[in-house]
Amino acid sequence: MARIICTGLGPGDPELMSVRSYRLIQSARQIAFFRKKGRPGVARQIVNGLLPENVIEHAMEYPVTTEIAFDSPEYVAQLAAFYDDWAARLAALEGEVIVLCEGDPFFYGSFMHLHTRLKGRTEVEIVPGISGMSGCWTATGEPITWGDDVLTVLMGTLPEDELTRHIKTADALVIMKTGRNLAKIRRAFAAADRLDDAWLVERGTMDGQKKVRLAEAKHAECPYFSIVLLHGKGRRPEVRE
Amino acid sequence: MARIICTGLGPGDPELMSVRSYRLIQSARQIAFFRKKGRPGVARQIVNGLLPENVIEHAMEYPVTTEIAFDSPEYVAQLAAFYDDWAARLAALEGEVIVLCEGDPFFYGSFMHLHTRLKGRTEVEIVPGISGMSGCWTATGEPITWGDDVLTVLMGTLPEDELTRHIKTADALVIMKTGRNLAKIRRAFAAADRLDDAWLVERGTMDGQKKVRLAEAKHAECPYFSIVLLHGKGRRPEVRE
Repeated sequence: MARIICTGLGPGDPELMSVRSYRLIQSARQIAFFRKKGRPGVARQIVNGLLPENVIEHAMEYPVTTEIAFDSPEYVAQLAAFYDDWAARLAALEGEVIVLCEGDPFFYGSFMHLHTRLKGRTEVEIVPGISGMSGCWTATGEPITWGDDVLTVLMGTLPEDELTRHIKTADALVIMKTGRNLAKIRRAFAAADRLDDAWLVERGTMDGQKKVRLAEAKHAECPYFSIVLLHGKGRRPEVRE
Repeated sequence: MARIICTGLGPGDPELMSVRSYRLIQSARQIAFFRKKGRPGVARQIVNGLLPENVIEHAMEYPVTTEIAFDSPEYVAQLAAFYDDWAARLAALEGEVIVLCEGDPFFYGSFMHLHTRLKGRTEVEIVPGISGMSGCWTATGEPITWGDDVLTVLMGTLPEDELTRHIKTADALVIMKTGRNLAKIRRAFAAADRLDDAWLVERGTMDGQKKVRLAEAKHAECPYFSIVLLHGKGRRPEVRE
């Protein structure tokens, strides 16, 4: 029976993966990773050049990604069957299997759908990673939070009025899963009268990293891993300057 | 003039620092780190055994920590003078100085007080790290968030009624700076009727890691780096099992 280790790869720069993750990957005999059909896969690309020669690769290809609405019964059924299938296939492998995961596996990572199916069936270990949002706020050159700021992390898939409500009252804010939700997110910031303070970071820590003011991000879509940030200003008495 | 690199050390296990951080520390000629007077310092302890022999160490000792209320004018003045002093001293050093920081520097890290003073005076680079909260939620064995859950991160130093208000409505929740605020945090969870779902993780990923239900954490105080967690249950249609 397999021993599964899911390791977080961090925000994209291979130098930002943990020492433990790096060692696991360099000595891996079997790896598995999610990808969209016909694509190399983000996680797989991060470990390019690090894998041993004869490693066995299991590409877990999503049956659907954005072709069907993510809240439709059909999407849910297809994804559930996909995760059931791969949980069974991974559990049936022999020896150690390293599952690659962008960012931090237990923070909005797809692996959790396998994790919940593998628990109790086989040994599973999780290695945390630097989150994508951390790579992005580091790229802005300013701390995301000060003192007693409350940080709120939202998905761009939420309804517009809910986004607006959170943006209005947030100290510091991160919006993930920006991609095709960018126009909606911009409207939500405008409605909350905070558009001028928000930043969009694309491909944080990776080649082609880009940081623009959200107000100036006119493109209708941006990469799935783009993140919108609103920096906190701090609540405590000033010890700054 | 100094070139300052502040590197995140991650949640505590030295294997969880980034490859880049590990290399910077192993080849450091000068390091600096915060600590409480008379203590070895958490960041300094994480790198035990990794430093080159003749490294020069700058221990930046807080003039006060918990002896004075953190929102008193005296605390604020003493801390501001301390950060002014160390910013000037670090900037005046020659060559590369590696500043050690627990967790992720731009996420509630003390280095931001030096960063804001050093900006424009000398070259400063930040290397992100795995956050302490990630080490703690990984230690619980369950993902902190599912699907479209909103994650809220609070400081235990906030007023009790504000904690209660956030706990009532949160999907997934993290409370940092637990330490001497533990009793207040427990009352806030009880008032929000969610005490039975919360976990306390002490020394996540380090020797002596401990995970207990918050309801059973009867000790009046716990280590400063302890974190309280409430796992999200997910908002999207189920693809779990």
